[in-house]
Amino acid sequence: MVRPDGFTRLSFTKEEKAAHLQFENIAAEIGLKTRQDAAGNYWAIWEVDQTAPTIAMGSHLDTVNCGGGYDGAAGVLTALAAIKGLQDMKFQPEKNIAVICFVSEESARFGVSTIGSKAITAQLNRREIETIKDRNGITIKQAMTDYGLDWESIEEAALPIDSLESFIELHIEQGMELQETGAEIGIVKGIACPVRLTINTKGMANHTGTTLMNRRKDALVAIAPLINYVQEEALKVNESSEFPLVATVSTIRLHPNAMNVIPGEVELGIDIRSVDDKLKRNFVERIRSFVSELEAKNQVTIEIKTLVDHDSIMLDGKMHARLKQVSEALGYETLSMNSGAGHDVMNMAVNWPAGLIFIPSKDGVSHHPTEFASLESLEKGTNVIMKYIEQEAGNAHES
Amino acid sequence: MVRPDGFTRLSFTKEEKAAHLQFENIAAEIGLKTRQDAAGNYWAIWEVDQTAPTIAMGSHLDTVNCGGGYDGAAGVLTALAAIKGLQDMKFQPEKNIAVICFVSEESARFGVSTIGSKAITAQLNRREIETIKDRNGITIKQAMTDYGLDWESIEEAALPIDSLESFIELHIEQGMELQETGAEIGIVKGIACPVRLTINTKGMANHTGTTLMNRRKDALVAIAPLINYVQEEALKVNESSEFPLVATVSTIRLHPNAMNVIPGEVELGIDIRSVDDKLKRNFVERIRSFVSELEAKNQVTIEIKTLVDHDSIMLDGKMHARLKQVSEALGYETLSMNSGAGHDVMNMAVNWPAGLIFIPSKDGVSHHPTEFASLESLEKGTNVIMKYIEQEAGNAHES
Repeated sequence: MVRPDGFTRLSFTKEEKAAHLQFENIAAEIGLKTRQDAAGNYWAIWEVDQTAPTIAMGSHLDTVNCGGGYDGAAGVLTALAAIKGLQDMKFQPEKNIAVICFVSEESARFGVSTIGSKAITAQLNRREIETIKDRNGITIKQAMTDYGLDWESIEEAALPIDSLESFIELHIEQGMELQETGAEIGIVKGIACPVRLTINTKGMANHTGTTLMNRRKDALVAIAPLINYVQEEALKVNESSEFPLVATVSTIRLHPNAMNVIPGEVELGIDIRSVDDKLKRNFVERIRSFVSELEAKNQVTIEIKTLVDHDSIMLDGKMHARLKQVSEALGYETLSMNSGAGHDVMNMAVNWPAGLIFIPSKDGVSHHPTEFASLESLEKGTNVIMKYIEQEAGNAHES
Repeated sequence: MVRPDGFTRLSFTKEEKAAHLQFENIAAEIGLKTRQDAAGNYWAIWEVDQTAPTIAMGSHLDTVNCGGGYDGAAGVLTALAAIKGLQDMKFQPEKNIAVICFVSEESARFGVSTIGSKAITAQLNRREIETIKDRNGITIKQAMTDYGLDWESIEEAALPIDSLESFIELHIEQGMELQETGAEIGIVKGIACPVRLTINTKGMANHTGTTLMNRRKDALVAIAPLINYVQEEALKVNESSEFPLVATVSTIRLHPNAMNVIPGEVELGIDIRSVDDKLKRNFVERIRSFVSELEAKNQVTIEIKTLVDHDSIMLDGKMHARLKQVSEALGYETLSMNSGAGHDVMNMAVNWPAGLIFIPSKDGVSHHPTEFASLESLEKGTNVIMKYIEQEAGNAHES
């Protein structure tokens, strides 16, 4: 059954808070110690000994606007399910097992993603983000304060390296590779981090009824060809490249956006991804050169800003091998693959050996109410996590 | 001196109210009787005899977002100035002279224009508009109620035909014909009323990072070619048509409009105008046919809605001749012309002989902070109104 409007639990809203409290309830029910850290991440710990090493796993519960029920939630719930399963089996871990429910993974509200995992890995600088606003003009600082956090101390969520031993995340694939190859579990090698641009075009607002067609400086007409250029060029690039590249004009802000006024100013947001960083950056250069042509042809000024430009993240080879071995040992068809989407694990990977497990999502649909992963896939994912914990934290572990 | 953000006095806001109260103050200062009608229009009357005929003039004080200082205001202030000038000349009118400050002329807030003059001419049906919302979700009904009006009685603003004898409006041209021909005063023959369409395109929202380029149903990519088609086709049409046609993709609503989500739904708003109604409607057919092609080529569904489709308004020939004669008698270079923009006079013209006087607006710029009409032009416009009133309402009037 699909909820027609899906789920909307934006970053630092009462909806995200309610989901975290539900996480806390379930964790407490299975006997885990829970706490919220200074950035708003919720932790649930199966603690055996404070001096023992801790292996961690987790994902997030926030969503985009009208998102699906699995992106993030699948990783949090399978982590809890794995612990419950191990408890039911009377498994006695020799390490502490932590489940992290990361706050604010999606960029839907503030244009900044993975705030919680950035904070844990000391990659969050509150001075750099404090003035960023959502579309209602509320700053991140205000939103986090209203969420009950102390803005001045959010960076204290950063953990010493020795406080964790490793990290794994399970996530729905949000693509179609598993479905198309018939694989049941994907083990991720690399994560494609986006380059994000905004393209601001300034023309001249004027009356739609009185300004003759050849007298206009219509900002939207000037920049509109870029929308199809990005699509067509990305299709072409994929014909001849080893790794896929995806590029999307995903946001538009039009000013004044009124029926009887010629668009005076337009801002397009573009998201470009590939695990091949060179391919990604070459594509940005193509966009720059096409935009220069548009600027030269039209009486407008165009400014390109780079919001984000990170190298792709390669995950730990040993973790990859272990997760693959565990999955195959369970008899699952397993695929080594890359991720086109960013996840909290990419931040955790900077500090700790980290792994990412994918389960199939139907037809690759995600960030949409019809997003779906089968209960069977969720169960297989849970089994992989259980088996991994048995190996890592059991008597027989080889780490 | 240009205010960088121009003026924002949207329909039924405290800003529009403040402008109306200022109008009331000035009118009272020069001894006019003032009142607000049931739809929120402000009236100022130089009353000589309640049984005498009334000639009316006026314009509006609301603006678009970040509009200029002259669109509307020029017509209200020159009307008051003409009365003041005639009073200073000790002119004794034999008819009542009314200045109407029409409420809510611009469609910027609700997508509905000339609400005040529609109400006066019994062209407003409150049932048809009551659920229309602004971008903050406030209905017209709510906004008018908050403005201090009684929603149930707004239609009582409609006037019996015999309560006015004629109506004139002065407005800035918002185009470049006067400037280019060197004419000082324009007398308008016809007003091009818009056809307004919304084009709603539904594709499929999905994750920008994980959905390969050839697996997308990007609603924005599908419909984007229409933006340039409208511009290019309108340019072509103008090469071979007697009357100009203007067409603009002026609004966009993108859903979900988030950096990491492929656009699932896009609504474009299009405004098409020409005094040649056939030309205008043929253009709509071209758009329909192009949209069908886009729909066939892409995996999206597209729905076209007609918001507005009115015939153009031809103003009264005798009024046109009188205003032209008056303007020429004053020695002004005078141009008979058409209007690409709608004005309150187009509603008044349905019930009463009506005329429209244009004064030049610099470089045709309007709905923009740099909108400008010179004091000299405003003075010439005032002189035309004074001379017209002298003839219409003086001893020597020939009506």
